[in-house]
Amino acid sequence: MADTCTVSRYLLRRLEEVGIGHLFGVPGDYVLDFLDEVLASPIRWIGTCNELNAGYAADGYARMAGAGAAVVTYGVGGLSILNAVAGAYAERVPLIIISGAPPSRHRDAGSMVHHLISDYYLQLEIFKKLTVDAAILTSPETAPAEIDRVIQNGIAKKLPVYLELPADLARAPCSPPAPTAEPARPRTDAMVLKDCVEETAELINRSSSPVVLAGVELLRFSLGSAVLQLVERVELPFATTVSSKSVLPELHPQFIGLYQGAWSRDTVRRQVESADCLLSLGVWRTDLDTGLFSFKIDPRRTIAATENQVCIRNHYYHGVRLDDFVRELTSAVRPRSYLASHPAAADHARRPFEPDGSRALTAPRLYDALDSFLDDQMVLLAEPGDAFCAAPEFHIEEAQNFIVQAYYCSIGFCTPAALGVSLARPGKRPVVLTGDGAFQMTAQEVSTMIRQRCPAIVLLLNNDGYLIERVLHEDGAYNDVQMWNYSGLPAVFGGSETAIGIRVTTEGELAHALATAAKERDKLVFIDLYLANRDCSRGLARLGQAFRQAQRKR
Amino acid sequence: MADTCTVSRYLLRRLEEVGIGHLFGVPGDYVLDFLDEVLASPIRWIGTCNELNAGYAADGYARMAGAGAAVVTYGVGGLSILNAVAGAYAERVPLIIISGAPPSRHRDAGSMVHHLISDYYLQLEIFKKLTVDAAILTSPETAPAEIDRVIQNGIAKKLPVYLELPADLARAPCSPPAPTAEPARPRTDAMVLKDCVEETAELINRSSSPVVLAGVELLRFSLGSAVLQLVERVELPFATTVSSKSVLPELHPQFIGLYQGAWSRDTVRRQVESADCLLSLGVWRTDLDTGLFSFKIDPRRTIAATENQVCIRNHYYHGVRLDDFVRELTSAVRPRSYLASHPAAADHARRPFEPDGSRALTAPRLYDALDSFLDDQMVLLAEPGDAFCAAPEFHIEEAQNFIVQAYYCSIGFCTPAALGVSLARPGKRPVVLTGDGAFQMTAQEVSTMIRQRCPAIVLLLNNDGYLIERVLHEDGAYNDVQMWNYSGLPAVFGGSETAIGIRVTTEGELAHALATAAKERDKLVFIDLYLANRDCSRGLARLGQAFRQAQRKR
Repeated sequence: MADTCTVSRYLLRRLEEVGIGHLFGVPGDYVLDFLDEVLASPIRWIGTCNELNAGYAADGYARMAGAGAAVVTYGVGGLSILNAVAGAYAERVPLIIISGAPPSRHRDAGSMVHHLISDYYLQLEIFKKLTVDAAILTSPETAPAEIDRVIQNGIAKKLPVYLELPADLARAPCSPPAPTAEPARPRTDAMVLKDCVEETAELINRSSSPVVLAGVELLRFSLGSAVLQLVERVELPFATTVSSKSVLPELHPQFIGLYQGAWSRDTVRRQVESADCLLSLGVWRTDLDTGLFSFKIDPRRTIAATENQVCIRNHYYHGVRLDDFVRELTSAVRPRSYLASHPAAADHARRPFEPDGSRALTAPRLYDALDSFLDDQMVLLAEPGDAFCAAPEFHIEEAQNFIVQAYYCSIGFCTPAALGVSLARPGKRPVVLTGDGAFQMTAQEVSTMIRQRCPAIVLLLNNDGYLIERVLHEDGAYNDVQMWNYSGLPAVFGGSETAIGIRVTTEGELAHALATAAKERDKLVFIDLYLANRDCSRGLARLGQAFRQAQRKR
Repeated sequence: MADTCTVSRYLLRRLEEVGIGHLFGVPGDYVLDFLDEVLASPIRWIGTCNELNAGYAADGYARMAGAGAAVVTYGVGGLSILNAVAGAYAERVPLIIISGAPPSRHRDAGSMVHHLISDYYLQLEIFKKLTVDAAILTSPETAPAEIDRVIQNGIAKKLPVYLELPADLARAPCSPPAPTAEPARPRTDAMVLKDCVEETAELINRSSSPVVLAGVELLRFSLGSAVLQLVERVELPFATTVSSKSVLPELHPQFIGLYQGAWSRDTVRRQVESADCLLSLGVWRTDLDTGLFSFKIDPRRTIAATENQVCIRNHYYHGVRLDDFVRELTSAVRPRSYLASHPAAADHARRPFEPDGSRALTAPRLYDALDSFLDDQMVLLAEPGDAFCAAPEFHIEEAQNFIVQAYYCSIGFCTPAALGVSLARPGKRPVVLTGDGAFQMTAQEVSTMIRQRCPAIVLLLNNDGYLIERVLHEDGAYNDVQMWNYSGLPAVFGGSETAIGIRVTTEGELAHALATAAKERDKLVFIDLYLANRDCSRGLARLGQAFRQAQRKR
């Protein structure tokens, strides 16, 4: 029997082939037959406390491993994970959702079974809006082709996909997986590419103060090292955006900093905005990446390449793939040093942090301390909120060492995502930087990290509520949250042996807590960082100022 | 300025008019202007830890108060609350969802703003599938009429509705609310009603062993007392289903018990299935209400009335409203006692529980103890799982004293729902009966109950995992959950003064814990009930047996 292929085994095999080593999720009766096959497979089952958290964990996993997957039951499970799928859709993360479903005979009869909302195609229809491909598997004959198409589409387009597996199909025999051909990759038309690259190279060659702005698509399509070759060969200065932070190394002498329009540090803003040729690669002009649309970039001095097109000044080359463009451009541009035009370089050094023992902890000093604490074996996950705003403070050298949902901005994402990161890269240690309001959303997943022995470091910015809203809007009682005794959580979550909870109110305590975290490398270390109610990062202070200026103008 | 009507004030006024005194939700920048108006209104803002929990709380509130409402921000909020909306849709609960949205100028420009998934109509389209009415408010001129239509539809049809409020509309002046006319209620055609009632009355009058099966629609349309008049006037024996449990008083001498097909207690099953005339009122034939479709009810002896039609034997009267039918039938049937035909009556007494001090706690004994503990000032919320299966064990006398999601069955529902119950009915004390797997889904809302001083009693069935799945399916490691030190949670959640955590392993400790809960009526009391891994209610044991028999037949 063990060698009979079934729909479940087929699916699990295809998941393995795209790099899935762990499945996150919550069991439910419609999916138990599939889960029995998961337990018998090389893929590890990681039960989470709820489905949304499974989705976030799988998203974090996908950002490290190239793809992530989550398993839920019908209705209550499918609808609960949806916000994580929406986030993956907005941010281009290949997330594979597998939902159990009632047996086909109930679907055919339209029976009122538990977890059914109204009709048997509703869940599929909703997922179709949030995925690039979605299917209900309806027979063992067609299931293999459906599975192959759906998974390949998700991987190729870096978008979530959905497979619904009715309970009676899970053990149905089907044909075994054939070797998969590498899916045909659309190529750029050679003539279009040549013209486009020639025009771009000519503009850069003529330029005296060019700058590369490296955007989020470089992260999503793993083009960081290709772009690093380009900028190093030509010695182009480069900046990144919040969503693409870490795609290029931040201690690099050519690195300018994070460009965020009016929210940027002055040195960064000046150099980017005064460039006589801006090569913008894979940049999304979202509100937060552009400092609420305060980018000051003259289109007549800009070459903007995205996934499938290049816009030079005001004309377009369609169908030019970003990877082809970067590769060809690297050999076409004339090497030449622009470092003389790079005034921001002095900004770069990591400054050692000297704690002032009994001084009360403040946010800017905390971020200084954290910058000197982080190393290349840590992955920083920055929650939307002050952690997001503090992003420019940290020097990150490797593309996968920084994770932020800078566009969809779902608070509560980072804690479960750290579970995914830890399992995808056991050699790296996730460092979660989150606010108290955000943390409370998904707090229970700390217990799953303890259960899975993930040695995460959770840094809780305990500033008594939704800080960013207090700063950006007239404050209201709706920004308050219940004050928890956070440092007691690890013990309550079953981690009295394998986890540590620490409360920090001074710089001395901070230094001690970080030293403990560094020493206890096998334990989960949870640090409750007590901050004054409106204390915030330099970044959020800049943002607040720019925001109020924009409000006044409106 | 205070007397200028705005779209927010208009909406808040209409919410008050349908009985909304509390709004549950999570703030986000697109909804802060509206929340400022909430704070200035008589409606109380109840911040929850996340949006799904806000939805569950508002659902619990609606089941007590007739309507509930939750407020979320765009995208991350709207998509996170969806499972609660789906549950309200499946179970017919009028839940009003108000979502903030980016300002109209961004929608018109199609800008990439944070929390946007792909296009500005996506969230509306998804909500349309899960609500009876949904609208984006697009101008202050049309907003009042849209608000009125959407809210009235939700209340009239007992279904969720959706209103999307772009940030720029929140403070836009609009016409003040006019007095609302009572919405025209569709009436039953008098001739159809007369024929239908005459035929029904004749069948009941001729019957020698009639039984009324009172279903869930009676709860949803508040027809419990009307049906009680009918059954008392005619002295008809009555049974209920799990989803309608408590719609008629369970210590009543005419009460038979819960009918669940093959899962029923024998005495109940025999009396219902041998009735020579079964009057089925508002029953939904869901899998769990029918004991996996094991109802043995002969259609030729059945009159089945639902929301809008009556089926007598095999013919239908369309357009007959359930309330009209019940009212007219009450005067048409000849009073006559059928109590001689009622063998199950002896089952009814509540038995006092005598704890055997050092005896290890077991599930059946726990439910006996709980039955004698419950009183009319308590509302029992039974989570899908063993708490659901134990439902027949409890004697509930008032329609609003028992809450179960017996059709949609979303585990994790009961803890946040208890928050809603407590705020809707401050005179009543919610008693949550939940499993450990279910509890972990939404555990953080205990902190909101502590914050709001809700004196709930949380009874945690700590049986080390997803018990019902262990019983109904070959067990697998996916049914395990992390063991928490649950009784430490109240203190961690900030309740060291106002909440109590107790761990119980014996009957003596149980008796003591329940006595503490009874005494400490102003505190939240959290009781961790330690049970053996597969220990379950008599109901789940019956269900397991019937389930395995059905599996063997398949």
